[in-house]
Amino acid sequence: MSINSNLAQEIQEQPQVLRQLLETQVAAIEQLAEAIRRRDITHIVVAARGSSDNAARYALYLFGSLNQFLVTLAAPSLYSLYQRPPRLGNSLVLGISQSGESPDLVTVLAEARQQGALTAAFTNLSDSPLAEQADHVINLSAGVERSIAATKTYTAQLLALAMLSSQLAGDRSMWTTLAQVPHWVEQTFELNPNIYQAIKPYCQMRRCIVIGRGYNYATAFELALKLKELTYTLVEPYSSADFLHGPSALIEPGFPIVVTAVHGPILNEMQQELMPLLIERGAEIITLGNDPQILSQAQTTLPLPDDIPEWLSPICAIIPGQLFALHLATMRGYDVDRPRGLRKVTKTQ
Amino acid sequence: MSINSNLAQEIQEQPQVLRQLLETQVAAIEQLAEAIRRRDITHIVVAARGSSDNAARYALYLFGSLNQFLVTLAAPSLYSLYQRPPRLGNSLVLGISQSGESPDLVTVLAEARQQGALTAAFTNLSDSPLAEQADHVINLSAGVERSIAATKTYTAQLLALAMLSSQLAGDRSMWTTLAQVPHWVEQTFELNPNIYQAIKPYCQMRRCIVIGRGYNYATAFELALKLKELTYTLVEPYSSADFLHGPSALIEPGFPIVVTAVHGPILNEMQQELMPLLIERGAEIITLGNDPQILSQAQTTLPLPDDIPEWLSPICAIIPGQLFALHLATMRGYDVDRPRGLRKVTKTQ
Repeated sequence: MSINSNLAQEIQEQPQVLRQLLETQVAAIEQLAEAIRRRDITHIVVAARGSSDNAARYALYLFGSLNQFLVTLAAPSLYSLYQRPPRLGNSLVLGISQSGESPDLVTVLAEARQQGALTAAFTNLSDSPLAEQADHVINLSAGVERSIAATKTYTAQLLALAMLSSQLAGDRSMWTTLAQVPHWVEQTFELNPNIYQAIKPYCQMRRCIVIGRGYNYATAFELALKLKELTYTLVEPYSSADFLHGPSALIEPGFPIVVTAVHGPILNEMQQELMPLLIERGAEIITLGNDPQILSQAQTTLPLPDDIPEWLSPICAIIPGQLFALHLATMRGYDVDRPRGLRKVTKTQ
Repeated sequence: MSINSNLAQEIQEQPQVLRQLLETQVAAIEQLAEAIRRRDITHIVVAARGSSDNAARYALYLFGSLNQFLVTLAAPSLYSLYQRPPRLGNSLVLGISQSGESPDLVTVLAEARQQGALTAAFTNLSDSPLAEQADHVINLSAGVERSIAATKTYTAQLLALAMLSSQLAGDRSMWTTLAQVPHWVEQTFELNPNIYQAIKPYCQMRRCIVIGRGYNYATAFELALKLKELTYTLVEPYSSADFLHGPSALIEPGFPIVVTAVHGPILNEMQQELMPLLIERGAEIITLGNDPQILSQAQTTLPLPDDIPEWLSPICAIIPGQLFALHLATMRGYDVDRPRGLRKVTKTQ
């Protein structure tokens, strides 16, 4: 185990990082929520890349389901390369970025400001170019992230988004639930003590599919990205619905597929449609979740706390995924802190 | 060659289908554009799945760049499974679906109508449940599509979207350009007479990446979907920017990667950043496009007409991709009309 790698340490730091975020950013979140209410905004445009874009996918379901906000994922090239930005109307334009440095994201926020939209940045560096373009800055408070693969800044982004959603909903009980997140994350580590052993059968895996839907659509994308970045495996994320519209043709006996299945409205489709198909086709099923039925049907289980509500489950669900990627990369002898050809800050136009 | 398959025939029918669409749907497009203008709408929410969702990705760049409209891809589960639909405001809610039957898409349009939004359906069956929920119906006029994999209905969707964008722009010269699309599609067939030979080196290919950005982001997704559905290869689509933010770590000598590179603002990044990286890492490069520099750097070339404007290029760019998938599936002895485990109409909730 690369137990001394920055990546391993940063994965372990997450409960502490999340506590810090809950302690330090409440006032900033309140101010942003107040500005959103004052301007009667119900539409959020999110600009992000990589892991932060996966946090944006979470935002889509979070603000949609809990605040009835419409969330649009920005197409940065319209602002940068094409120089033909859409009219943003009365929206909040939110940049999410660990470094806050990617020029295309900075361009989106600068244009938003030009158009008079409300702007905010969720970043780990509050003096970054992205933060400079933002009316409101939420500091992810994650400390320096040394490993190239994002871990603690990703879960911090999810929690910061959940804090904003709770504040906008004006429901104090949501804050009580939020306060339990660091504890649930610790529990997730305890529930998965032997991932290194559990994933040994996948040491030679070259291809894999990850399924999530609703809130955990983000988890499918982020787990796929970690596996790609760290283990050079070709991994594709899908919602169970999109998967049934075509790509399910891929599945043949032994094909490894990770199914994220957390208590909630998405479970029925997973139980009734997806799992029977996968079992019939002889897929090798790895389950990440807390549904006993689906866990019992899998070859490998990565359990999550039973009592975590679905809307916060992505913060826990990615943890066994990060450990999966860390250990698989270690088993294959790869440098987990410096994946080949990647830089910490990727500057795309 | 499965020259007698429905799939091969439907691929060949495309120039004729596109002519038919241009001849029969102008009035319906004009009426829809008029309704959009009357209600001062500048925001489109698109609900779609599978190939139609890839057409929605084209809509994002098309309406963004040419009409300065903001385009949001709907998350159908918020409407169906979660029953927590967002507030749609003053938007056009557009359902795109070959069959018009998927219950989750019908739910999105029904909710939109309930909220008083303008609704439209782009479908090949104008008496479908989706069409019933729509104020405006654009009939894709593609004739019955027998093959499970969508081909002619996809290019018809792209052209119908381009027709709406042109009408909204109020620029008659765009209609003159649109009229040339069937001809450019015919030219694309002529430029690619020997795809069966050209793709022989990829007969054993198990994994592949497809790159596109801007308008041809849609092409990357649709080509990846065709290869997955028909040839059971694991193929992942990326924008060149997202690819540089992590997944580029995957590339090792001989890794097959399709690069879509059409004249336009995205070309510089492809030439300066992407291609040097791929060449340095020894990737096996297949180029789909009309840029001489990038074509000359590839092991395999799938050329496109030189004079097609970027905004219409996705209608041509998918053609060699469809042929690639058809021939690869044939070479591998698969039934191209009935990929394993798929139905023509996929009903997801």
